Amino acid sequence: MKTSRFLLATTREVPADAQVISHQLMLRAGMIRRLASGLYTWLPLGLRVLRKVERIIREEMDASGAQEVLMPVVQPAELWQESGRWDDYGPELLRFKDRHQRDFVLGPTHEEVITDLVRREIRSYKQLPANFYQIQTKFRDEIRPRFGVMRAREFLMKDAYSFHLDRDSLAETYQVMYDTYSRIFSRMGLDFRPVLADTGSIGGDASHEFHVLANSGEDAIAFSTESDYAANVELAEAVAPAVERPAPSKPLEKVHTPGVYSIKDVCDYLKVAPTQALKTLIVHGASEDAPFVALCLRGDHELNEIKAEKHPLVAAPLTFASEEELRKVAGAGAGSIGPVGLKIPVIIDRSANVMADFVCGANEDDYHYTGTNWERDAQISDVADLRNVVEGDPSPDGKGVLQIRRGIEVGHIFQLGDKYSKALNATVLNEQGKATVLQMGCYGIGVSRVVAAAIEQNHDERGIVWPEAIAPFQVALIPMQLHKSPRVREAAEKLYADLQAAGIEVLFDDRNERPGVMFNDMELIGIPHRLVVGDRGLDKGVVEYKNRRSGEEAALPVDEVVERLQALLAEN
Amino acid sequence: MKTSRFLLATTREVPADAQVISHQLMLRAGMIRRLASGLYTWLPLGLRVLRKVERIIREEMDASGAQEVLMPVVQPAELWQESGRWDDYGPELLRFKDRHQRDFVLGPTHEEVITDLVRREIRSYKQLPANFYQIQTKFRDEIRPRFGVMRAREFLMKDAYSFHLDRDSLAETYQVMYDTYSRIFSRMGLDFRPVLADTGSIGGDASHEFHVLANSGEDAIAFSTESDYAANVELAEAVAPAVERPAPSKPLEKVHTPGVYSIKDVCDYLKVAPTQALKTLIVHGASEDAPFVALCLRGDHELNEIKAEKHPLVAAPLTFASEEELRKVAGAGAGSIGPVGLKIPVIIDRSANVMADFVCGANEDDYHYTGTNWERDAQISDVADLRNVVEGDPSPDGKGVLQIRRGIEVGHIFQLGDKYSKALNATVLNEQGKATVLQMGCYGIGVSRVVAAAIEQNHDERGIVWPEAIAPFQVALIPMQLHKSPRVREAAEKLYADLQAAGIEVLFDDRNERPGVMFNDMELIGIPHRLVVGDRGLDKGVVEYKNRRSGEEAALPVDEVVERLQALLAEN
Repeated sequence: MKTSRFLLATTREVPADAQVISHQLMLRAGMIRRLASGLYTWLPLGLRVLRKVERIIREEMDASGAQEVLMPVVQPAELWQESGRWDDYGPELLRFKDRHQRDFVLGPTHEEVITDLVRREIRSYKQLPANFYQIQTKFRDEIRPRFGVMRAREFLMKDAYSFHLDRDSLAETYQVMYDTYSRIFSRMGLDFRPVLADTGSIGGDASHEFHVLANSGEDAIAFSTESDYAANVELAEAVAPAVERPAPSKPLEKVHTPGVYSIKDVCDYLKVAPTQALKTLIVHGASEDAPFVALCLRGDHELNEIKAEKHPLVAAPLTFASEEELRKVAGAGAGSIGPVGLKIPVIIDRSANVMADFVCGANEDDYHYTGTNWERDAQISDVADLRNVVEGDPSPDGKGVLQIRRGIEVGHIFQLGDKYSKALNATVLNEQGKATVLQMGCYGIGVSRVVAAAIEQNHDERGIVWPEAIAPFQVALIPMQLHKSPRVREAAEKLYADLQAAGIEVLFDDRNERPGVMFNDMELIGIPHRLVVGDRGLDKGVVEYKNRRSGEEAALPVDEVVERLQALLAEN
Repeated sequence: MKTSRFLLATTREVPADAQVISHQLMLRAGMIRRLASGLYTWLPLGLRVLRKVERIIREEMDASGAQEVLMPVVQPAELWQESGRWDDYGPELLRFKDRHQRDFVLGPTHEEVITDLVRREIRSYKQLPANFYQIQTKFRDEIRPRFGVMRAREFLMKDAYSFHLDRDSLAETYQVMYDTYSRIFSRMGLDFRPVLADTGSIGGDASHEFHVLANSGEDAIAFSTESDYAANVELAEAVAPAVERPAPSKPLEKVHTPGVYSIKDVCDYLKVAPTQALKTLIVHGASEDAPFVALCLRGDHELNEIKAEKHPLVAAPLTFASEEELRKVAGAGAGSIGPVGLKIPVIIDRSANVMADFVCGANEDDYHYTGTNWERDAQISDVADLRNVVEGDPSPDGKGVLQIRRGIEVGHIFQLGDKYSKALNATVLNEQGKATVLQMGCYGIGVSRVVAAAIEQNHDERGIVWPEAIAPFQVALIPMQLHKSPRVREAAEKLYADLQAAGIEVLFDDRNERPGVMFNDMELIGIPHRLVVGDRGLDKGVVEYKNRRSGEEAALPVDEVVERLQALLAEN
């Protein structure tokens, strides 16, 4: 491709409304343009990347045995009413009427449509398992679209839905999809982690998110230094410390701590480490017998609300006691609460359970205890995992310790079970001829989001640094003085033709621009390999090579350029 | 692909609601399924064809120098208001509000969006010409969707938009697109004609439709036996007959024709050929001076309303005189009207102009004239082309005569001129640095419609007969007694592997079905080449080959099958 025939819409200025680096770089590199809030046009440069991402996904999905279909974007309301989501789905579901005043939605997802198809077309267990996928436009009417294509309203998604006679078969296909997703993101050259996820409102048995690691990621992920274990920080189990609780060595003493309420201030005031202080929170209880419950954590740990509200004594959703309730229950305000003498259940975190001689609130404003010890001074109702993991915690699988990194969710796989198949009465005849409700899995990849996530992970101060497999072009060919030197033109045109003949994707910058402009543009758009053809090099029979990622440079003999590049590309 | 892992959703019965053969066959072959009125899911088999059509289009568009982009399906109302189409476009334009009560449309076409993009991104004539295309989902809220994907509400379209500094450049790209479209439909193996079209409401200078010829086509196309001339019948010029009008040889005589009004009845009654009878129609005139006008045609010819209403004396839209008006103007009812003695302008068709001694109504109920002659008996106000061409008419380009066939429009190319660029003020600086309104062309292909049109043209009583280039699979491999004969299984599996290794797309029917069922299914879905592996053949060392289109059969030695098939496929 020659730049003279290609819409290279690079810009210098950083767009004011773009907060994240991928959004900025996609606009600056001329990959996308905003049409309206959350609606983007993919320009030729961006679309080349999108199509490469799409192709890798399609090849791996096909190889996994999944069958490609294409379902309409516009879906009739009846199916959503049948599944119950017409009422349950929030305003992200765009509803509208057609010219005959019939209700429709713009599909944010396709569980209903595919389940409707399968209940009509698949009759026998012999046709199972079956896994159908599509790569298609989706619409979610986000209240506040942002970060460019990362959280757009219209976006490209790969969604797959598998159907099974039983849960074993579902688990098998789920594993195939897990492996397929791993291959997909590996082929794209991305540093990613499959992460145990909450099955949340969708329900079902198992769920993994696939995260591209990047400092700008919205989610924190904990993963083991020594195994494949990875989970969303909120879901990772904080295992019980391997140590025993030390025996009490100090007496319980009440000390005056005027105006000191936060853990940090208390520790500073009393000159102890936060690991020696206890944090006590009072929340609403689940039963009338125990309307309030105390939760205790080590001072440096954070409460994990998801874990806490799963405890049978704790009311869900988690509700903290008000200042008034605190005074009624504990006799003091927030910042002076502790487990000593409390008349309500006290649930303590596993790490708090091995503390001894610790500091805690005295249930009296402006007073704390020092030398507090469990059993001796305060009763324990239950020990549970109540906190977020922190870096250095042992991995729950017993191998290594946890590291925490940020990630961008680009894929999500679910074992749905029978949620939709039951609602839509999708059954098949089993081997005994009995109608059986189908088991179902679903598997998504945010195709447009992958492009943005790849940039979040792969960029530097000069622009994007594409992984080879999804770069819009493999090689940037930059001639010096093309419009003045016939020798350069001849050499560059020949090289362009030879590279193309070798199947290499080249962007030939034949604009009449200064070298600096061309260099900056090619670095901004992130083409992995750069060749510069100039009179100075040709005098020595060479073309100058530079690698976008490593910055490595080399003078390649003109005759060997194609061969050397092929070798470089084959490495990746 | 093995049928055991593929959703082969064939059905025997003809779906009741499918009127046209392509719709019936697409349902019966399991290519598509209806989700709601005008909304279809593409099943794996159908999607394979759709993707092949898409690939051919993409390759040829890329080769033409067009750049692929991807614009949103959802478009903001503001752009449509700016172009004026928010008001002008009928209820086919689906309008809706998002959660913030902002107006949007589901894009039926993308002139506004691309023009908005280009006015922002293209600044200089140096970036021109530029041609942008996309292959993308469109929505038109048809009042009565029908014929399956032929006239659906949601469909896949390739739309391209070119931008130019001047009309010469537009004409050049228009020609490139004309040639590109011809290559696209040729590669698909379709019998098609580029047809001169009416520029209609879109306006502009030139327009061609690309029609796939099929008896079921909605449009009649006239084309020359000896040149490239082709036009929609309604637009084809009926040239003046080369003969002179004969001199009168009979006297004018009024004859009683009781109860005889239609041309056919009059001719039967008077025993003359329809070519010797004159048809007279009275329509509203364009001016107050002449509120009614008579149009005269040869009895066997049909009025072309588009041509008639272009005549300066005729009111547009064409409005026929009521019975009451006829009596007032001519003194008789329909079926007894003629030009003799009429006091209104008489416009006669070129063919009517060379008639002599003809029959016509006498402007008196139940009476006709015989031996009528122009000038002598009836005055001519003007001679014009008023009729539809008929088979055998001379071609307007002077080469050969016209044939008439029916066609299905699958592509349309337009020279739009500045209609949208002016409304949206899309300008570039020309060589003199002056802002110039862009010239624009647009070029569409109904991607999903091509699939249906291909079937309309290529089917027989047993099902679809795919052209090689867009067949879902190239070869159907059918084993006899696969589940009983280990020898057949081994030979079939080996052949399957060998064919795939040779890059041939094979559908291996490994279901446990009777041979007749498998043969019927493979013929219904239209796979071009069939191989049958059975014990009887293997005894002789052969596999039985049959060609879907020609019915040709051959016994291929097992060792030569791959080679022979490669040769057969290379022929196409």
